[in-house]
Amino acid sequence: MRRETDPQSLKPFFEPREVVIVGARRSPGFGFILPLALQRQGWGDRLYLVNPAGGELHGLPVYVRISEVPGDPDLAVVIVPAEAVSGVLEELAARGIKNVVVESAGFAEVGKGGKELQERCREIARRRGLRVVGPNCVGVVNTENRFSTVEVVEEALTPGPVGVIAQSGVFGNILLDGLHQQGVFISKAVTLGNRMDVDECEVLEYLHADPQTKVIMMYLEGAAEGRRLVKTLRRVTADKPVLILKSGRTAKGREATASHTGSMSGEDELYEAVFRQTGAVRAETLEELVDLARVFSTQPLPRGNRLGIATSSGSLGALATDAAAEAGLVLPPLSPDTEGRIRAIAPRWMNVRNPLDVGPSGAYLPAMKALLEDPGIDMVLSIMVMPYAVFREFQLRGVSVHDFLGSAVGLRELAPEKPLVACSLGDRGFLEELDRSLGPGIPVITSPERASRALAALHRYRSFREKLR
Amino acid sequence: MRRETDPQSLKPFFEPREVVIVGARRSPGFGFILPLALQRQGWGDRLYLVNPAGGELHGLPVYVRISEVPGDPDLAVVIVPAEAVSGVLEELAARGIKNVVVESAGFAEVGKGGKELQERCREIARRRGLRVVGPNCVGVVNTENRFSTVEVVEEALTPGPVGVIAQSGVFGNILLDGLHQQGVFISKAVTLGNRMDVDECEVLEYLHADPQTKVIMMYLEGAAEGRRLVKTLRRVTADKPVLILKSGRTAKGREATASHTGSMSGEDELYEAVFRQTGAVRAETLEELVDLARVFSTQPLPRGNRLGIATSSGSLGALATDAAAEAGLVLPPLSPDTEGRIRAIAPRWMNVRNPLDVGPSGAYLPAMKALLEDPGIDMVLSIMVMPYAVFREFQLRGVSVHDFLGSAVGLRELAPEKPLVACSLGDRGFLEELDRSLGPGIPVITSPERASRALAALHRYRSFREKLR
Repeated sequence: MRRETDPQSLKPFFEPREVVIVGARRSPGFGFILPLALQRQGWGDRLYLVNPAGGELHGLPVYVRISEVPGDPDLAVVIVPAEAVSGVLEELAARGIKNVVVESAGFAEVGKGGKELQERCREIARRRGLRVVGPNCVGVVNTENRFSTVEVVEEALTPGPVGVIAQSGVFGNILLDGLHQQGVFISKAVTLGNRMDVDECEVLEYLHADPQTKVIMMYLEGAAEGRRLVKTLRRVTADKPVLILKSGRTAKGREATASHTGSMSGEDELYEAVFRQTGAVRAETLEELVDLARVFSTQPLPRGNRLGIATSSGSLGALATDAAAEAGLVLPPLSPDTEGRIRAIAPRWMNVRNPLDVGPSGAYLPAMKALLEDPGIDMVLSIMVMPYAVFREFQLRGVSVHDFLGSAVGLRELAPEKPLVACSLGDRGFLEELDRSLGPGIPVITSPERASRALAALHRYRSFREKLR
Repeated sequence: MRRETDPQSLKPFFEPREVVIVGARRSPGFGFILPLALQRQGWGDRLYLVNPAGGELHGLPVYVRISEVPGDPDLAVVIVPAEAVSGVLEELAARGIKNVVVESAGFAEVGKGGKELQERCREIARRRGLRVVGPNCVGVVNTENRFSTVEVVEEALTPGPVGVIAQSGVFGNILLDGLHQQGVFISKAVTLGNRMDVDECEVLEYLHADPQTKVIMMYLEGAAEGRRLVKTLRRVTADKPVLILKSGRTAKGREATASHTGSMSGEDELYEAVFRQTGAVRAETLEELVDLARVFSTQPLPRGNRLGIATSSGSLGALATDAAAEAGLVLPPLSPDTEGRIRAIAPRWMNVRNPLDVGPSGAYLPAMKALLEDPGIDMVLSIMVMPYAVFREFQLRGVSVHDFLGSAVGLRELAPEKPLVACSLGDRGFLEELDRSLGPGIPVITSPERASRALAALHRYRSFREKLR
């Protein structure tokens, strides 16, 4: 059985006073890159490097032994061969450093020998009271104080409301590389790796209590302890949405995760039931996980499941309608008032109904406005596409998408209690300009089906929360 | 009952001698843009403009009446108000122009009055032997002779093997705007609109016979005639894959299509059965339709369902494996020879199995090579991700992804009979460089699940074809 731990024992992972890098080195690899990255992030004066070779690296002295490190470090990042990790843990404990990120691979994920190594390290950590993230991971990120053991671009350190838990190191890294380009900004992130000590439940508790984190997204290969995961999810989802992508849906997929992070991912039906009962929001695909993170971190929860769609393409409207209906949303008729308002400005050929196909009428904004103000509508999807030829005409005349959508800026404020998502596709230049014009408060999703599913997920989570009352 | 028509009567839509635009005009809209676009495409000397106002437009004379148009036009594009279309059709017939694209909207899609207008036009077309595409469409594209009534960017006119049938005009236009940026290049495209005369079956037959078209992609809201669609699909899929996205899966979605192109989209179960029996490949989402077009137009059909996966991220490998298994593919063990070849170069921590997680070993190319040459593997998925930090190190040292993957160029030729798809995600700059490096012959899909499903679709279609033998 697992000992009880204090979530606050994780704090130095995110807010260290000073940091030691064990295994800093001159040759290419993370031992070379990480000190540089931490210097760039403003941690140069709170950084100590250790390598038996000694000397100097990136203008910093390299200490030969951990015991020689001066100052007041409370976190170590370990990047040494797997065989050397147990010795390093003993030395860190002796030096009084209690929090350790072990990035090294070559443990449980490589079979019997690695499992033994990992068990030995775990025993040392328990005995010496260390808290360990990893092994086989890339560590942690905190955007608030710009502390990141994962080297990412500057923009990825823009503070945001999304907490990230990724079991795998490489995957977590890749995810963080791309999220900011998809409008998802993070508060804190952890890659757990083989979970020798710290697991997803502890991090969930930590992010639950973290005031910067409003939404949690998680990639899981298998629960460390099933029952504890159920209890933890129940507690956390009562306050914050937890979005989960779980691999190992099939027997073959489960085999793959076993040899990757040493996870026993278990039968998928069990997980499906766990997620449903605990109000966790399951993503079917990686793309959906990112959609959910973007929509949950920017939109309010809807009061009900009544969706209004405005679209400039009838086909895309039909595709979005299919996906919405399949995901449990309804498209109610427009209220008489809304219908009247739209008829007053609509050309003769326009069908004034829901989904509302405004076609090339340019009646976008009034339509969206009317839907947002309709008391029978709980959330709005706006499918905004423009043939390239029309977009270019605008460009030639010096009219930007932003000019065209000028008053869209006020839209979000018109009904702050209703989720509003945009969907667009077509020419990449148009998409980029639309995204800029709508700003960070209105997500643009490039698939009508995914846009509908993300809105439906908001509703499902809201319903779950309602039932808890 | 439908009269029998000769598919070759569609030829002037794609290969007109000369073209008349009825409704060319000075005010913004397609009547202004289309003549300009055709001039840019090199059709300026085979173009006649008609408008009762007369005068001159874009340096061309504007004829007041159709009967005054000189030369030898065999195709007309009509962009006049719906009420004026029947008169225009009579005049075109009198002038001896038999093929007509009616772009005007305001027909069956707007209800009873529109339906009557459309019926009157249809009757005229039948009586006078006209062939009509539309109304409520944006017409046709032929990349071979650069004839396009849809204004698209230059790159979208790059000739390719994909024939496109889109029922809706706006949607077809948007689709064409983006396809080239997703590596899909087209032969011919038609937007059918309300299908007053020409329908999807006739176009399927035409593309079936078209030597430039190797793959057909189709967006359908409802079949014009169910039985004929079954017969036509059977004939066409025996030689060329037909990829179909069908909306109206739900009752609400069907209502939406009815008010859009006036289609009765029918029960989805029927369509599902039709597609399965006829070997048509159904896409579940719009994104999947584009994936399928890219993969079917660049990859061979596999001999079997045995997939080999090489990945630098174990998690992405697990997600791809789940999706592949769910879609009917198997991941067989590696052959002893392949295993030996990989073990010889693999670091100790690497699990030599399928999916093959090469991690950060850099052993990508040898792994892909070994999978391509393994006689027990029918197709290969290569998940190529690289943390931004590593990518930047390469960049700083002047090493491009192309240099890194140098010998990837020969990969495609190593096993030309095996489908090879790449998957990547992360930093956008890396993705773009990877796409360029791999070249047009190896599709890069930014979702592990979608990449697996596209490969599974290749196998399903191949199995269907095998059973026909």
